[in-house]
Amino acid sequence: MNLSLKNSLYTAFLIALLAFISTSQSDAHEHASSGSVAIAIHGGAGTITRAQLSDEQEEAYRKAIDKALELGYEKLKNGDDGLDAIEAAIIYLEDSPLFNAGVGAVYTFDGTHELDASIMRGDTLEAGAVSSLTNVKNPIKAARLVMEKSVHVMLSGEGAQRFSQQNGLTRVDNGIFNTPRRYESLKRAKQRIKESEESANANEGLETPVTSDLYATNTQDDYKFGTVGVVVLDANGNISAGTSTGGMTAKRYGRVGDSPIIGAGTYADNASCAVSATGHGEYFIRYNVAADICARMKYQGLSLKEAADTVINQVLKNAGGDGGVIAIDAKGNIAMPFNTEGMYRGSIDTQGNKTVLIYKE
Amino acid sequence: MNLSLKNSLYTAFLIALLAFISTSQSDAHEHASSGSVAIAIHGGAGTITRAQLSDEQEEAYRKAIDKALELGYEKLKNGDDGLDAIEAAIIYLEDSPLFNAGVGAVYTFDGTHELDASIMRGDTLEAGAVSSLTNVKNPIKAARLVMEKSVHVMLSGEGAQRFSQQNGLTRVDNGIFNTPRRYESLKRAKQRIKESEESANANEGLETPVTSDLYATNTQDDYKFGTVGVVVLDANGNISAGTSTGGMTAKRYGRVGDSPIIGAGTYADNASCAVSATGHGEYFIRYNVAADICARMKYQGLSLKEAADTVINQVLKNAGGDGGVIAIDAKGNIAMPFNTEGMYRGSIDTQGNKTVLIYKE
Repeated sequence: MNLSLKNSLYTAFLIALLAFISTSQSDAHEHASSGSVAIAIHGGAGTITRAQLSDEQEEAYRKAIDKALELGYEKLKNGDDGLDAIEAAIIYLEDSPLFNAGVGAVYTFDGTHELDASIMRGDTLEAGAVSSLTNVKNPIKAARLVMEKSVHVMLSGEGAQRFSQQNGLTRVDNGIFNTPRRYESLKRAKQRIKESEESANANEGLETPVTSDLYATNTQDDYKFGTVGVVVLDANGNISAGTSTGGMTAKRYGRVGDSPIIGAGTYADNASCAVSATGHGEYFIRYNVAADICARMKYQGLSLKEAADTVINQVLKNAGGDGGVIAIDAKGNIAMPFNTEGMYRGSIDTQGNKTVLIYKE
Repeated sequence: MNLSLKNSLYTAFLIALLAFISTSQSDAHEHASSGSVAIAIHGGAGTITRAQLSDEQEEAYRKAIDKALELGYEKLKNGDDGLDAIEAAIIYLEDSPLFNAGVGAVYTFDGTHELDASIMRGDTLEAGAVSSLTNVKNPIKAARLVMEKSVHVMLSGEGAQRFSQQNGLTRVDNGIFNTPRRYESLKRAKQRIKESEESANANEGLETPVTSDLYATNTQDDYKFGTVGVVVLDANGNISAGTSTGGMTAKRYGRVGDSPIIGAGTYADNASCAVSATGHGEYFIRYNVAADICARMKYQGLSLKEAADTVINQVLKNAGGDGGVIAIDAKGNIAMPFNTEGMYRGSIDTQGNKTVLIYKE
């Protein structure tokens, strides 16, 4: 073989190799935008046991999660943007009295409802969040408006409401969020807070503790749970996340939990994953839970499942932080770990397989 | 050499090895708690050029940063907790009219001041944050009270103020934060917003944009900068971070920036670093800046300098996010990268070397 033939063969080989690499990459790209879609939903984590839920209650939760999944999935199959799917599913959960978001939101100490929500998309890292809304029916809509119609990421309180109404959302009376079940929870929580503060005064002669750790021991009402969230992979290969909540029963002093905090309760980045959290919000803020799961995928090379499990079942559990997350990556892998007894959750994967679960199984 | 002698020698070797390892670890621990202390401070980043600052202005900023450094450093040398050093330094900066925090805070669209702050310690990952305060003189004190006297991490608005006052902070009139310089900035910002909205209406016939991107092009007033922050390594080997701000000139609708968002404007974890940020807050929230610097150290094994530089000068810069951070790790290494023309900043390292800087140098 002479040198020139050798060079020709070498060149031909290089061209073939480049063609192969280029085809593979194009395949990979095709796969990402081929229309594979997936969705996961949570409706809160906490001390949910078979003993506590009647068959009827269990059935109601399963049906609601199932319906929300279908509403979101329909949008995704239709090729709609992931945020449309998130919005459709969360609006349904906000309107359901079963969950601590929208109608059915827990009561503040003063007997009202203050709602928080956030949304984020993984392709552009755009995000929107609202906190302490009292008269916007669907906070997830307000969060999306902040993202899409303002230069800001987070708006709060009366200003956020003015913004929402200027952008077309109807002002509603705070009373529409009332439910008898949550009102009973408030009465019990206030009774416990009162007893705790009286006992603190009697024992210590100190000033009344302005926020009590006591009601953190309440397992009966799951006062800090019931947040709803949705993560999706849409037909364009984008992943997104959204979260909505009424916060914590008997909350005072304008307390803000993790749900409207980008990085804590919600995060989305196509380079890693999209996450929505539910649980004891203070821990989720301090441990930067949603973004930390993404960071462990991106920087440690962990799988979605490994990253989510490590944060929920090791880091948070060791710290005493109760809760769970739903998470999805750009390939449509789904993880739904929680360190409590149960988490209302469900998913439809890229193969179309649906699961709706409540307890550990 | 018989077997038993061999075993004895082997055992002796093992014991010596264990003793060596144990000593090394103990040394490492001693080093961490040997009293080495360090502090870094920022007073905002932006379009700060030699042409824009008079000699007197430059001198005033240098003196203020120097004084804040000394106040914090004195606490650290005294063996006080890092949070005491942060509080002392930030109170001084909040009380100075030079910075966009406390007195000298920028005006909201409505002509008032709404202040945000947060604080976090790296040993326990405890954190406290307040947003939208209007009548608390030193927001950093309120943030620390939330951390130490409540079960919550973040309180907002009137509730946060009631909490602050119940815990001993004096209620002040919002007017005490007024300064003529910031009022002029507001007037200019509102004029620009008005022109922008009029022009949008004339050109498009569309609804008035409720928040305008126009004032993002303002370089004259540095409307979005001037936030103050402090990070420290204390004599116990703990690192902590704190941030305080008046937010963005002419902000509306209860806008919340990155300063009170744990993970965005402030983060501290002894396993990696403590960070306080200043800049265009929306980007710092979306890119989870403070916690991301820590995550890159923890998970990628980057040095503090590498991690902070990558996030500020690559990730944020590519995204168009202006600003900078100060950061410190548990060994007392300090990094102060920024991608703007200047950042008011200073540090005293573990050797006692002090630097006070404004421009790139």
